[in-house]
Amino acid sequence: MQPVGIIESCYPDKFGIPRQPGLARHATAILHLLPPFDDADCVRGIEGFSHLWIHFLFHASPSRWTPLIRPPRLGGNARIGVFASRSTHRPNRLGQSVVELAGVETGSRSGQQGGVRLLLRGHDLLDGTPVMDIKPYLPWVDAVPDARAGYAPAPPARHSVSFSAAADEILHRRVDHATLRALIEEVLAQDPRPAYHAAKPADGQRQYGVRLVDVDVRFTALNQPDGQLLMQVQAIVTA
Amino acid sequence: MQPVGIIESCYPDKFGIPRQPGLARHATAILHLLPPFDDADCVRGIEGFSHLWIHFLFHASPSRWTPLIRPPRLGGNARIGVFASRSTHRPNRLGQSVVELAGVETGSRSGQQGGVRLLLRGHDLLDGTPVMDIKPYLPWVDAVPDARAGYAPAPPARHSVSFSAAADEILHRRVDHATLRALIEEVLAQDPRPAYHAAKPADGQRQYGVRLVDVDVRFTALNQPDGQLLMQVQAIVTA
Repeated sequence: MQPVGIIESCYPDKFGIPRQPGLARHATAILHLLPPFDDADCVRGIEGFSHLWIHFLFHASPSRWTPLIRPPRLGGNARIGVFASRSTHRPNRLGQSVVELAGVETGSRSGQQGGVRLLLRGHDLLDGTPVMDIKPYLPWVDAVPDARAGYAPAPPARHSVSFSAAADEILHRRVDHATLRALIEEVLAQDPRPAYHAAKPADGQRQYGVRLVDVDVRFTALNQPDGQLLMQVQAIVTA
Repeated sequence: MQPVGIIESCYPDKFGIPRQPGLARHATAILHLLPPFDDADCVRGIEGFSHLWIHFLFHASPSRWTPLIRPPRLGGNARIGVFASRSTHRPNRLGQSVVELAGVETGSRSGQQGGVRLLLRGHDLLDGTPVMDIKPYLPWVDAVPDARAGYAPAPPARHSVSFSAAADEILHRRVDHATLRALIEEVLAQDPRPAYHAAKPADGQRQYGVRLVDVDVRFTALNQPDGQLLMQVQAIVTA
């Protein structure tokens, strides 16, 4: 097995990546095809597809696996079989994500000669991820909207996100302020805190950090009087 | 990379397998987990999912690949990039199929000690296929019914299938006659003949054979006066 490409991602760290693709629609990545696959012929006709399957390796996960895992969805307590989960700690460390294809670039770019780059949106891939295969998404095969999905029947809850005045000011200085703000909202709405923190009431004191694109987003979590969780962006600093 | 399981399939040969899963809903397979993955813990909770992703190797395809392939869908003429296709002739030979989970068996069976078997339906897997991963299907992630799918926007046409009196009689002697008949209909409705035969008018003379379960299905193809193609089962013999 040999990687056919490598991911350049808005997610430089594992921490903060939504647990499935599509949960953060403003997440962007560039899939760089690697030689000898960096041939425009290899992607001829791919622009006709709105979505692709990316097959990849969970390269930052340990190669060790166990039969049972504790899905965050179940609060980190109940145990589920590794093949009944999408855990990254799995035999062969294969991952699979459906992503939006936003564009196809071939030819030289910023000094690079040749090459093929697929522009992806709504992904959940860590920067540096090795890609093992790319397939077109076929809705009449792959879409089973009525499938029954055991302990994970619906997307996780989305929490509200607020921005401090200081964070707002930093954002407004950037040319990508609209998309970066949307990405921060989508990522924090999932509550990326570890399951054992997320399980306790949040008093807004403890600060967490998540790296997105080229910044470090510092945030707190607060249970409001009605019990709803508010994710508060306190500061945005250059990583 | 190490197989986690192996497929025992109703398709003993590549010839005749529908080009995607779900096209033949009566196709059945048993996925036998291999040691050390044949532990009931590995599949705990999997019965809560109606569909699974099976990741596998196209073990009967050549490891040689080319940047361009000719999809049967386009009549075998137009060429498409390998990553814009689901061709089995691809780098790393990775396959991916969504299948129905019809049952889970653990423990001994017909003399086997222990073991774990997943009963699959609607698959497109060749007998002996090595399975590299199993993941639960999550409709809120994996189902994108409105995805645009270039040159393959809809399922292929289904042709009518008729059975000769002799074929009917053979079928009626079997305990599995209803499901075997349905499987034969589903497989022949796809017109499994090579693209270069399927492209020409069919006069009902040439006989083809497709192996399904333990039989060899002999059939002809005939363009009827209205141009519609009729697949005619002439004989069913023990393979």
